Amino acid sequence: MSKKLTSRQENYSKWYNELVVMADLAENSSVRGCMVIKPYGYAIWEKIQQELDSKFKETGHYNAYFPLFVPKSLFEAEEKNAEGFAKECAVVTHYRLKNDKENPGKLVVDENSKLEEELIVRPTSEAIIWRTYKNWIQSYRDLPILLNQWANVVRWEMRTRLFLRTAEFLWQEGHTAHATKKEALAETKLIIDLYAKFVENFMGISVLSGLKSDSERFAGAEETYCIESLMQDGKALQAGTSHFLGQNFAKAFDVKFADKDGKLDHVWATSWGVSTRLMGALIMSHGDDHGLVLPPKLAPYQVVIVPIFKSDKELTEISEYVNPLIEQIRKNGYTVKYDNRSNHKPGYKFNEYEIKGVPIRIAVGPRDLQNKTLEVFRRDKMHKKVLKFGEVFEEVSFLIDDIQNELLRASKRHMDDNTKVASSYAEFKQMIEDGGFVLAHWDGTSETEEKIKKDTKATIRCIPINKKEPGKCMVTGASSECKVFFARSY
Amino acid sequence: MSKKLTSRQENYSKWYNELVVMADLAENSSVRGCMVIKPYGYAIWEKIQQELDSKFKETGHYNAYFPLFVPKSLFEAEEKNAEGFAKECAVVTHYRLKNDKENPGKLVVDENSKLEEELIVRPTSEAIIWRTYKNWIQSYRDLPILLNQWANVVRWEMRTRLFLRTAEFLWQEGHTAHATKKEALAETKLIIDLYAKFVENFMGISVLSGLKSDSERFAGAEETYCIESLMQDGKALQAGTSHFLGQNFAKAFDVKFADKDGKLDHVWATSWGVSTRLMGALIMSHGDDHGLVLPPKLAPYQVVIVPIFKSDKELTEISEYVNPLIEQIRKNGYTVKYDNRSNHKPGYKFNEYEIKGVPIRIAVGPRDLQNKTLEVFRRDKMHKKVLKFGEVFEEVSFLIDDIQNELLRASKRHMDDNTKVASSYAEFKQMIEDGGFVLAHWDGTSETEEKIKKDTKATIRCIPINKKEPGKCMVTGASSECKVFFARSY
Repeated sequence: MSKKLTSRQENYSKWYNELVVMADLAENSSVRGCMVIKPYGYAIWEKIQQELDSKFKETGHYNAYFPLFVPKSLFEAEEKNAEGFAKECAVVTHYRLKNDKENPGKLVVDENSKLEEELIVRPTSEAIIWRTYKNWIQSYRDLPILLNQWANVVRWEMRTRLFLRTAEFLWQEGHTAHATKKEALAETKLIIDLYAKFVENFMGISVLSGLKSDSERFAGAEETYCIESLMQDGKALQAGTSHFLGQNFAKAFDVKFADKDGKLDHVWATSWGVSTRLMGALIMSHGDDHGLVLPPKLAPYQVVIVPIFKSDKELTEISEYVNPLIEQIRKNGYTVKYDNRSNHKPGYKFNEYEIKGVPIRIAVGPRDLQNKTLEVFRRDKMHKKVLKFGEVFEEVSFLIDDIQNELLRASKRHMDDNTKVASSYAEFKQMIEDGGFVLAHWDGTSETEEKIKKDTKATIRCIPINKKEPGKCMVTGASSECKVFFARSY
Repeated sequence: MSKKLTSRQENYSKWYNELVVMADLAENSSVRGCMVIKPYGYAIWEKIQQELDSKFKETGHYNAYFPLFVPKSLFEAEEKNAEGFAKECAVVTHYRLKNDKENPGKLVVDENSKLEEELIVRPTSEAIIWRTYKNWIQSYRDLPILLNQWANVVRWEMRTRLFLRTAEFLWQEGHTAHATKKEALAETKLIIDLYAKFVENFMGISVLSGLKSDSERFAGAEETYCIESLMQDGKALQAGTSHFLGQNFAKAFDVKFADKDGKLDHVWATSWGVSTRLMGALIMSHGDDHGLVLPPKLAPYQVVIVPIFKSDKELTEISEYVNPLIEQIRKNGYTVKYDNRSNHKPGYKFNEYEIKGVPIRIAVGPRDLQNKTLEVFRRDKMHKKVLKFGEVFEEVSFLIDDIQNELLRASKRHMDDNTKVASSYAEFKQMIEDGGFVLAHWDGTSETEEKIKKDTKATIRCIPINKKEPGKCMVTGASSECKVFFARSY
């Protein structure tokens, strides 16, 4: 804790990596590319889970659980409509270890335990779930199926970064089945809107919502809706996706239903997900040079009270003094931690809670008892003020709302200030170099998109929905239906 | 749903297998030994999770998340103190698939992607967690560490049964680190008591609590505490375990701490877990020939209301009639489902909710509107009675407590009635043949235990704690400290 955090100005990437560890969010494990999510980081993830889970349930979804492993042949069935699917994955080939006769104490794979068919650790679960839905769906009466799963998935990534890109990560994946295209499309949009509202109102992060271009879309999808957020360094981060899968998976796995007239048709599908990557968005949206800054709705504890004492007697007096406040805070549904550890000094604790981004810190020492005061500190603005004891609860209550709102306002401002419109390719290049979103006309072809990416490292983050605004492509001059959002991205 | 459930008398094992599927709890997947947990089954598991999770947190534990994979070398480190550790596990050897050039559309393992060191899908996480704790623990100030993880684990089982024994299953695993043996022992006992209370008061299942014998103990443990329940067919089922690990894992992974005087010592450890196996215990404790019977605290919905109608108009009238009741039930914190589906007949619905074990069913038809009545059915006793509308909420409220209590009472009675004391080995053999727990004197040796198992298929389920009652072993006549519980088991 004595180590100083690198400033964002100095090295943003280093700042991020240090902060994840110093704020006790996560760390690299002894398994390549896999992280350990530490209790404080996991408590934030649990808040994300609880809120999303209740929103999914409110909109008619149920949770279920499907196998970790996907037989290789199911990927082959899917491969027909998803040629671009990544093949970097964890492959289970054997089911037994045995003692190594030549090296006592060592273990080797038992070659007699080779599997007839390799099993893949799920990178995503469309294949195994649609193989299962095949048995569940016969008639329109069996539809819709609106399921979600909270699970771990594995994608073999060569270059990993905590939360942003790890071999194993945690996520939720929704997989729905519908009788009509219209219903499936409505579901896809319902979810992207749910995600956008959640990320803005709960995480305090402003997002753009739109469609992916052909080349950025999920391989098995006909349309991919996404939400995109803008990090402090001007790079975009995809925060969630909702895919309209058409009848692709139903065709790959032969899933048909009989409608009311007995006519058979393939089932329509969606899938959608957000992951522990949201933790990265959180850090890079609100964090500052002092550490993490948490919106109160995500904070494992919203208030921390630090007593400043030299003796057990002083601690007892302070505890008696603040107990009614602690009770009042809890009774009103807020969370508060009273840190009466005697093996750490107040300065150490102050620093710890700044790095951990606790929204409100209350300090209380012997002088406060005499003066009937408390010192209240708000983490987002690093402001502190001394208040009369009787004023403190109202201030806490105000700050919990105000910090939440202020963080979203600041995030919106950041996005607005860093979203520019380019009228020429030269201007575009400079704007991309400066960072942020750049709105520009594009001719709709993958070739032009690829050229832009090669020239500038920028990709199309999203295509606005229902915003017709004809113009000319900044690169080719061909006609364009609307301006699209470009940025460099995580 | 038209298929009739096999009776328990006819074939208990078949009854179980059919019920799991017919009650929509789970089914086998296309991956050998891995199950799909269906929404209704998963909703019950979520109730189990929520209650346990809150109990863990109330007792000072935090959740965290550790990697799915364990490098082979970590098992080798552990192997030194756990020679008996099972080696049947899923082994990841490669990280890429590629297109099969000789068979278009097929995928093969890319031999160039062989891992330098094989990764094992965690069968349990002591190894990876203690490897991590090594970096977290330097001084007594870092202790205790009280962590829990909700996770999937994989053990390669040859013969699997839904919930009872599956290759992949869901569980929670607690892993704690302490400065003293005394503290670690207290933690081990705290948890086994927490488990026992949870299984009795929340799941309505009576349990025995005690110690495992040497041969039944977890390989890395010095003492294993367990809770054992008795299924309807007279076989025991281990419902949870809490291990005192001594300094075994600290020694295997070289985890030491400095005490207040700077003296170095190895850290003391515990680990503990319950799994989706509890779902099996639930089914085989309360289920009957009509299907599942759920204790109200575990029911995804405690009350179901089935309107009996022939027209939309009748449905509207019924809905208006029962809406105030639905509101009252919800307002009081109970859960209720109103099943107004028009594509299924009431008889179909009655059958469905009986099989799914919904504690209370309320039926309402046009005649009830005239008579200002409702028909209330309690699933556990299959009793129904017609009540005046105004009496129904009170009845519901009564039944939710009464069914919960009655199920536990019945479970206790079943265990009491089927726990016998054997005074000779001949008597013991007959009692084991009859089913249930048999208390008998045993000389404390693994040899005698093995002989009993060979003769009768019964194992020592648990050794009572602090119950000294000297006697003579029923097999060898050697001295015995106390009677122990034997049974055949799942």
